[in-house]
Amino acid sequence: MEVTPSHTQAVNGWAAMDESGKVVLFSFKRRENGVDDVTIKVQYCGMCHTDLNYINNAWGNTIYPVVPGHEITGVVTKVGTNVSGFHPGDRVGVGGIAASCLDCDHCHRSEENYCDKMTFTYNSISSDGSITYGGYSNMLVADKRFIVSIPDSLPLDAAAPLLCAGITVYSPMKQHGMLQGEAGRRLGVVGLGGLGHVAVKFAKAFGLHVTIVSTSPAKEREARESLRADDFVLSTDQKQMQDMAKSLDYIIDTVSAQHSLGPLLELLKVNGRLVLVGAPDKPVELPSIPLIFGKRTVSGSLTGGMKETQEMMDLCGKHNITCDIELVSADKINEALARLALNDVRYRFVVDIGSTL
Amino acid sequence: MEVTPSHTQAVNGWAAMDESGKVVLFSFKRRENGVDDVTIKVQYCGMCHTDLNYINNAWGNTIYPVVPGHEITGVVTKVGTNVSGFHPGDRVGVGGIAASCLDCDHCHRSEENYCDKMTFTYNSISSDGSITYGGYSNMLVADKRFIVSIPDSLPLDAAAPLLCAGITVYSPMKQHGMLQGEAGRRLGVVGLGGLGHVAVKFAKAFGLHVTIVSTSPAKEREARESLRADDFVLSTDQKQMQDMAKSLDYIIDTVSAQHSLGPLLELLKVNGRLVLVGAPDKPVELPSIPLIFGKRTVSGSLTGGMKETQEMMDLCGKHNITCDIELVSADKINEALARLALNDVRYRFVVDIGSTL
Repeated sequence: MEVTPSHTQAVNGWAAMDESGKVVLFSFKRRENGVDDVTIKVQYCGMCHTDLNYINNAWGNTIYPVVPGHEITGVVTKVGTNVSGFHPGDRVGVGGIAASCLDCDHCHRSEENYCDKMTFTYNSISSDGSITYGGYSNMLVADKRFIVSIPDSLPLDAAAPLLCAGITVYSPMKQHGMLQGEAGRRLGVVGLGGLGHVAVKFAKAFGLHVTIVSTSPAKEREARESLRADDFVLSTDQKQMQDMAKSLDYIIDTVSAQHSLGPLLELLKVNGRLVLVGAPDKPVELPSIPLIFGKRTVSGSLTGGMKETQEMMDLCGKHNITCDIELVSADKINEALARLALNDVRYRFVVDIGSTL
Repeated sequence: MEVTPSHTQAVNGWAAMDESGKVVLFSFKRRENGVDDVTIKVQYCGMCHTDLNYINNAWGNTIYPVVPGHEITGVVTKVGTNVSGFHPGDRVGVGGIAASCLDCDHCHRSEENYCDKMTFTYNSISSDGSITYGGYSNMLVADKRFIVSIPDSLPLDAAAPLLCAGITVYSPMKQHGMLQGEAGRRLGVVGLGGLGHVAVKFAKAFGLHVTIVSTSPAKEREARESLRADDFVLSTDQKQMQDMAKSLDYIIDTVSAQHSLGPLLELLKVNGRLVLVGAPDKPVELPSIPLIFGKRTVSGSLTGGMKETQEMMDLCGKHNITCDIELVSADKINEALARLALNDVRYRFVVDIGSTL
């Protein structure tokens, strides 16, 4: 229970109290709205697979009670005296980062996501010693430097998952040059879930040729028809995989289960790049031959900085990119978590906090 | 035995006839010197760990009898009518590539090493159907496009391993920008053998700060004193490894035994790059967390193209870079192979072909 003296604002939320895998109603306190703070009435919060991992203590570092949620959209209700960019009534979003040191090289380059002192939106320890609580709650106090504006053209529910799923694929796609250069360059998206389906949308908006690489034949039709994917390869079919050898410029690998990168690397041209954005809890296998003989590259990427998160959100507004979501009321979070554990969602659950909590 | 009709020139060499792990004297034929060919009296041939793998059929693809050797230096004795760049008496070298298609995008960019039709200097099938035989032999017929000039300042024995060990590290060091930019950037060299020790020499010539990462404390003194390495970390000492966390810009990983990249990735700064040039026969372990949380990159690289091989050789002439070698007579190849299997060499065996075969 939050006991920091300056934490005086009562909040209702949903928390996992232990490793039982369930969330329950939970009342707690947030800090006063400070001079650099913005108070947000939370409307929607996306459900990221990471939430499930923290709820279940899959990484062994959960601080219970944990209030998950880092794909948060809502409306500003109060701003501090040092805040000029946001006003009550503004539509805003908060992603995975609650704070960073603001003073290191990474922060200066708006790579707050790589700051050594980065504080996550939940399950982190704040500079005042309190534990951060996330967006499965009806109100949030956020530092102005970690808030983005949501363009008017985007609905707040379908925009919420952009704050994590969206930026997690946008950042490496931009940084590895996938969104520049001539049209027709070929991207493979491995795994068609919350992250993968947004990667397809960015890629199509920027003229890339997109191949979905999936273990699930059931996803082909929708991938081609709804998401406008150009091609679909069943990764369990060796013949299909061989026919695609050396055909891709880039791969975004969103799979968070343990797997070998070998068959994926074989799909890349010489000099091709694979970016791992899923986080398997056991090491992936990296065979040296397809890496070396193709001068290929495997990179990691962790969410994005604040400047590029706003840039992504603005681009989404311009290109009308949102996530495909299933909206659930706050009293159905546990059912949604159970389905999320089975990857039974197209493609992201979003909790309707504003109407139901 | 070579039976191709146009192969008329008698050659003496050393071949492994089977999986016994030994080489024996072997007489065979090479092709006539064609219009684009250069005939070379072989003087020296370096012994690469790859030779041992082919001799022992470690990769299961050895075509016996196999004449190993792809770090070849010697003197031109004959040139074809279409050859203008080389003349009898010239000091030249041949590395791992005997031929490529000369017509694909890779060949046009002088990335012959990534041409789909690349023919290796030995254990490959030539366009005339013959098996290629390497430099453990007294004479070689080579296509003019796969020969480099050796600067007068470099001795032919210590220059020989540059044709494989040298270019294998030079190419990725150049392509990943390690040899440009301000001095003092920090490189880790993992494994101090044939490849590693040349990487240190290139790095020091270009002003990098070099840390050796090794399992062998016995190598520290020589690394610091002879090779001018700035630092030495024992990879089995967790404290030493932790003290070095996030300190390196680049890593060249020359280890060909199976290992985890995790502890090495932790040594890299955010955005740091590791290049794998050793080729472990089993997949290496790639944990996702240090890759993702540090936005780090793992790349492969396979030898180099002909243009950059000549460029490297010229740089070696300018900076007086050669390999540290142990010269062995041709009748001692088997003893050298036995020591090579134990990594008991500082840092490369070179066979004195000219004097003893």
